[in-house]
Amino acid sequence: MPVPQSMKAWVLGDPEELTLKTKDVPVPGRSEALVRIDAVAICATDLEILTYGTPALIEGGAPFNKEFTPGHEYMGTIAALGPGVDEFEIGERVTVEIHAGCGQCKRCRMGMYTSCHNYGLNYGDTDKGHRANGFTTNGGFAEYAVNNINTMIRVPATMTDEEATLVVTAGTSMYGLTELGGLVAGESVVVIGPGPIGLLAVAVAKALGASPVILVGTRENRNQIGTKLGADIVINPKEEDVVARIKEITGKGADYVVDCAGNETTVNQAVHMTNRGGKICLAAFPKKAVNFDLGALAVNNIYLYGIRGEGRSATHRAMAFMAEKRFDASLIHTHTFPLEDLPTALRYARERIDDAIKVVVSMRQPTATTDQITEGKSQ
Amino acid sequence: MPVPQSMKAWVLGDPEELTLKTKDVPVPGRSEALVRIDAVAICATDLEILTYGTPALIEGGAPFNKEFTPGHEYMGTIAALGPGVDEFEIGERVTVEIHAGCGQCKRCRMGMYTSCHNYGLNYGDTDKGHRANGFTTNGGFAEYAVNNINTMIRVPATMTDEEATLVVTAGTSMYGLTELGGLVAGESVVVIGPGPIGLLAVAVAKALGASPVILVGTRENRNQIGTKLGADIVINPKEEDVVARIKEITGKGADYVVDCAGNETTVNQAVHMTNRGGKICLAAFPKKAVNFDLGALAVNNIYLYGIRGEGRSATHRAMAFMAEKRFDASLIHTHTFPLEDLPTALRYARERIDDAIKVVVSMRQPTATTDQITEGKSQ
Amino acid sequence: MPVPQSMKAWVLGDPEELTLKTKDVPVPGRSEALVRIDAVAICATDLEILTYGTPALIEGGAPFNKEFTPGHEYMGTIAALGPGVDEFEIGERVTVEIHAGCGQCKRCRMGMYTSCHNYGLNYGDTDKGHRANGFTTNGGFAEYAVNNINTMIRVPATMTDEEATLVVTAGTSMYGLTELGGLVAGESVVVIGPGPIGLLAVAVAKALGASPVILVGTRENRNQIGTKLGADIVINPKEEDVVARIKEITGKGADYVVDCAGNETTVNQAVHMTNRGGKICLAAFPKKAVNFDLGALAVNNIYLYGIRGEGRSATHRAMAFMAEKRFDASLIHTHTFPLEDLPTALRYARERIDDAIKVVVSMRQPTATTDQITEGKSQ
Amino acid sequence: MPVPQSMKAWVLGDPEELTLKTKDVPVPGRSEALVRIDAVAICATDLEILTYGTPALIEGGAPFNKEFTPGHEYMGTIAALGPGVDEFEIGERVTVEIHAGCGQCKRCRMGMYTSCHNYGLNYGDTDKGHRANGFTTNGGFAEYAVNNINTMIRVPATMTDEEATLVVTAGTSMYGLTELGGLVAGESVVVIGPGPIGLLAVAVAKALGASPVILVGTRENRNQIGTKLGADIVINPKEEDVVARIKEITGKGADYVVDCAGNETTVNQAVHMTNRGGKICLAAFPKKAVNFDLGALAVNNIYLYGIRGEGRSATHRAMAFMAEKRFDASLIHTHTFPLEDLPTALRYARERIDDAIKVVVSMRQPTATTDQITEGKSQ
Repeated sequence: MPVPQSMKAWVLGDPEELTLKTKDVPVPGRSEALVRIDAVAICATDLEILTYGTPALIEGGAPFNKEFTPGHEYMGTIAALGPGVDEFEIGERVTVEIHAGCGQCKRCRMGMYTSCHNYGLNYGDTDKGHRANGFTTNGGFAEYAVNNINTMIRVPATMTDEEATLVVTAGTSMYGLTELGGLVAGESVVVIGPGPIGLLAVAVAKALGASPVILVGTRENRNQIGTKLGADIVINPKEEDVVARIKEITGKGADYVVDCAGNETTVNQAVHMTNRGGKICLAAFPKKAVNFDLGALAVNNIYLYGIRGEGRSATHRAMAFMAEKRFDASLIHTHTFPLEDLPTALRYARERIDDAIKVVVSMRQPTATTDQITEGKSQ
Repeated sequence: MPVPQSMKAWVLGDPEELTLKTKDVPVPGRSEALVRIDAVAICATDLEILTYGTPALIEGGAPFNKEFTPGHEYMGTIAALGPGVDEFEIGERVTVEIHAGCGQCKRCRMGMYTSCHNYGLNYGDTDKGHRANGFTTNGGFAEYAVNNINTMIRVPATMTDEEATLVVTAGTSMYGLTELGGLVAGESVVVIGPGPIGLLAVAVAKALGASPVILVGTRENRNQIGTKLGADIVINPKEEDVVARIKEITGKGADYVVDCAGNETTVNQAVHMTNRGGKICLAAFPKKAVNFDLGALAVNNIYLYGIRGEGRSATHRAMAFMAEKRFDASLIHTHTFPLEDLPTALRYARERIDDAIKVVVSMRQPTATTDQITEGKSQ
Repeated sequence: MPVPQSMKAWVLGDPEELTLKTKDVPVPGRSEALVRIDAVAICATDLEILTYGTPALIEGGAPFNKEFTPGHEYMGTIAALGPGVDEFEIGERVTVEIHAGCGQCKRCRMGMYTSCHNYGLNYGDTDKGHRANGFTTNGGFAEYAVNNINTMIRVPATMTDEEATLVVTAGTSMYGLTELGGLVAGESVVVIGPGPIGLLAVAVAKALGASPVILVGTRENRNQIGTKLGADIVINPKEEDVVARIKEITGKGADYVVDCAGNETTVNQAVHMTNRGGKICLAAFPKKAVNFDLGALAVNNIYLYGIRGEGRSATHRAMAFMAEKRFDASLIHTHTFPLEDLPTALRYARERIDDAIKVVVSMRQPTATTDQITEGKSQ
Repeated sequence: MPVPQSMKAWVLGDPEELTLKTKDVPVPGRSEALVRIDAVAICATDLEILTYGTPALIEGGAPFNKEFTPGHEYMGTIAALGPGVDEFEIGERVTVEIHAGCGQCKRCRMGMYTSCHNYGLNYGDTDKGHRANGFTTNGGFAEYAVNNINTMIRVPATMTDEEATLVVTAGTSMYGLTELGGLVAGESVVVIGPGPIGLLAVAVAKALGASPVILVGTRENRNQIGTKLGADIVINPKEEDVVARIKEITGKGADYVVDCAGNETTVNQAVHMTNRGGKICLAAFPKKAVNFDLGALAVNNIYLYGIRGEGRSATHRAMAFMAEKRFDASLIHTHTFPLEDLPTALRYARERIDDAIKVVVSMRQPTATTDQITEGKSQ
């Protein structure tokens, strides 16, 4: 696989301003590989970054006008290996998780590399080795990206590029469920919010044997996908009293709740539907403080786990289930665009045009003309 | 030890209305013992119960006018054993934790007996075997009480009655710290709120090797007791910016925070002072919903553990440290009254008269005349 | 469902001497139900008990000539409920696990009811409440048995009686894998010994996402069933060097090993095939001490978990997967006999006649004539 | 602190052949610091290495005649920092643990850096970044050594050099006890074998609140030190039946056993003295296979944890207790020699001359004349 010297890459100027430029292809260092990107999915966080900047800022500032390339849910083919790397071979297909920890901080030493205490300290003199693809280092809206081998997961030949971009999303759901204790087989799991993480949380919970798996969502088309992914029961809050219905189904309340909506209504529902000694995972980011019934948490010995993404190699566990086709993650993939049409792809994702859920940019996708776009759905 | 047929017991009539009556001495059943009460401490929850009733109601209703005797932080001497009980002997001194689980529900089967799903179902046809001393069954403001042997912890000869009443409080702190993971040696622990649970959380954290142990409190006299119990640093929120100070001390934030105040200010401080991947225990009950920065929880992978009291045999672990005199729990014991003066004792506790922290009713305490009361302190 | 006063039950006289007698139908007490037995599988431990007695002896002695009815892998229909039992209804189909813990000992208080410290203390004055069906109390080679509700698991309508008898076997495999940490998705799991527990360990490991799942066994017919249950690779020690092959497949060695053979050869293979930091479950009972390379365990930070059966509600987790048809446990069920032919069924199990794996006694099976027996396989 | 260009270092030639040579002072790289060694203790493993080579061989071969400097229990003062290191400052006193993991393998990603799958792969092209001081890289029998910052623990001013060398030993004991579950307060812990790890296991168990702490040892002088370090009961196997005595003391057997002797007698005693559901840590290396009652392990649901040293930052937890003077680790330090007398120091350690337990080489110790040696004890 010959590696060119330069590549096309989208670069962030002012907020929301993306330009397709030519950049040098980066060179992998120790414990790194160069990945030729074959597909990259759009995450809600990408949209945040374009507007507001990265959660932890690059070089002590916002990522704007710094030649920064966002995009973190990508997969591709190994094009080159850094010195001494023999864990992978050139030509292997890989998908990536976001974080490579610094390896030295308290959290990395515990295996919690996504809670690295040196997050964002990865430039110049302050380089502690932490990398967050598309957050603090250049990401996947480009033809090539360098990745620490810690972030790379092999993709089986039976998996499409597009499905492989969803591993980090499934890995986030898997992380949430395994942090809650993991032994969810036979336990009741409620997932609130049928976004990508929520829908795959349904799929992962079902694969892990949870029973019943209950999805709470207002959008019918998404709820239907939830049913296909394994939800035994779907509750639409516009039609039913969610907490009352969960109590009716479960008797004492749910054992585990994964809140992927994270608004004031849902977080309080989550606490009120969880049974004594049960657990909640908050896999969403309320932007503002919410009025929250903390007392119910204490009275009922409920534990609440805030997560910001995947961790503890949960992507590997998610891939194990996806490789075995235990669930069809590609059900949440709705649209595909070529790299040149990233702005359109972003717009579809942001505005949920044509009921878009996961929008993928594929390097193998021929450039579509404007009127083909609405037919741009994956098969 | 001859057991009389009748005994003195305080009985709850209307809210706040306690009357000292004569009751039959109860008879222990299978897996139970009769405890002659030697001392009983007053907990903030007792004050709640007198006013508002028990959290889980007895026989489907409030505990008022049902001949109910409250009081749950008691210790005493075994006076009689139920059939087949050979785990204890008559004459042994014991202190008690609150819950005996039903043994059949999901939580009891997991060892989480304080999260028993049959809480409160312990009368007549609905008797599932759960017992919560002084909550759902008669408690310790009396001369005798029946206890499931699961709730009983032996008291060493070197421990006073008064100190032994504090084991369940220390056990609550121990439960919180061990649920957070337990390996706090060398980790930074912040305790917010120098009430009884907070002060003993300082002591338990120190005994477990936490370093530094930081206490946040506004009342100077209590902060000083915190220092004696092991706080390395004390922060007074009236004088300092708590979060800024914690960050200054710890660099990245605290590893563990135990919030024993549980108000809107403290819970938000707790989240903001905890480092990425850290953990918070909420050991207090905000009565109303609070405006809470849940987003910071998710962004920083922080886990929040709500606890309502002790659990998982943490009282036994607390007793192990107290028996070895690793900390002097009696520092939080400020006042002692005889059984007859329970109303005065309750008033001292409620109104924090004379800087009262833990007020104990001792059966060995001679009845004080009114003007002796302010000298009613222990030692 | 009318309950008769008397029933047929096999009773153990001298060792190996079973007689079909008439006994009173037992009456369920508090937290108990009467189960009309519909099917009961034969476990290797049953054969042990008939010859050598129960591991923990009843009433301080062997179970011989005490009107004892063995049999513990049974399922049936609830025929009557003890006082206050509302967790189940008459007519529900249930399968059972073996242990109901005492609820008071250190282990039961931790949720480890199968490690109850009052095992065997369940008669007369020493009755501490522990029950082990078919071990220390009368079991399932009979028309009826009394069961603590803790041991009962609902059977879905889609599951046959025969498959339901296998839940406790699958639960043992599940217990082993979950005690090892549970997060086996994507990890390599080796199962040594294709007996019932080993074959279902293959199935459970596969269902939990383990990859690869490797079965080590010498009997080809059983290895083939292992492949059907999910083994990715089968190794026959008669044909290959097991340890070398595992190293070749895995690189550094296996992550988890479940040894269901438990002889000197296999336990040493287990240690030598496990990678640094890996874990082994020993789910078999070497009768005599074996020459064992303990040093390799220490040098490689390997943890070895001895288990004697199911525990921690693992049967519920196994049932969750079986109810979803994630694997077909009935593949290990090879023969069915009527209750009257228990001795023949035992002989088939003991001598592995006709490649018998799991032999089931079904109450619905018509009495077969002798020459029908070799055709007595389940459909 | 000026750093010289060359230094004195002991170098291993043929087995057992140590020569004091002049070597270049090594230069710290990224995430590394140069430590001026102030004291180094002798571990039994050092003696093994001198005779048999390192457990994992350097550059694919034995460490003999490769200019290798052994020694791993050292402490000192930071003399220089690698590029970008700001976690430590020059002049700080530190003690070291052995392993810095590769950061990329499965175990390192889980926080199990002492079970690194790239152990020993740290030279030339195969350099995966794992470091084991004095095992696979040059160690502490020298004036200077380079250390990954992951291995460094700050030493408080109140701790002597000699005591600080014992942190890794205490850390091994701490690792064992925390891997067993950590919540040993109030639980019975038996330690077999009063060597350095065993004696500090007594101290750590006591500090963690274990009760009773029972030491099993044959050497009276060491047993007495065990008593000073916190053993509640000492059993001499030459005088008593160890298993019978433990059963007598504990009733059902011990909750936790740490076997630091690791011979055929002790490992079987360990299994037979552990109660149902209890746990054993094997912190010793039986060189040959031993005849071991594995069946008892399975029947009693006992888990056996083999450990080869410290891990999971247990040294930090040990240091937290030592810094607080919870136990006096220096009680096991018996002799001190200057660097020049390393051979004598090794002989004292190997032959247990003058009841030697921990022998320390101190850079501040003036060279002793031969007849001063028997007075070479620490204060």
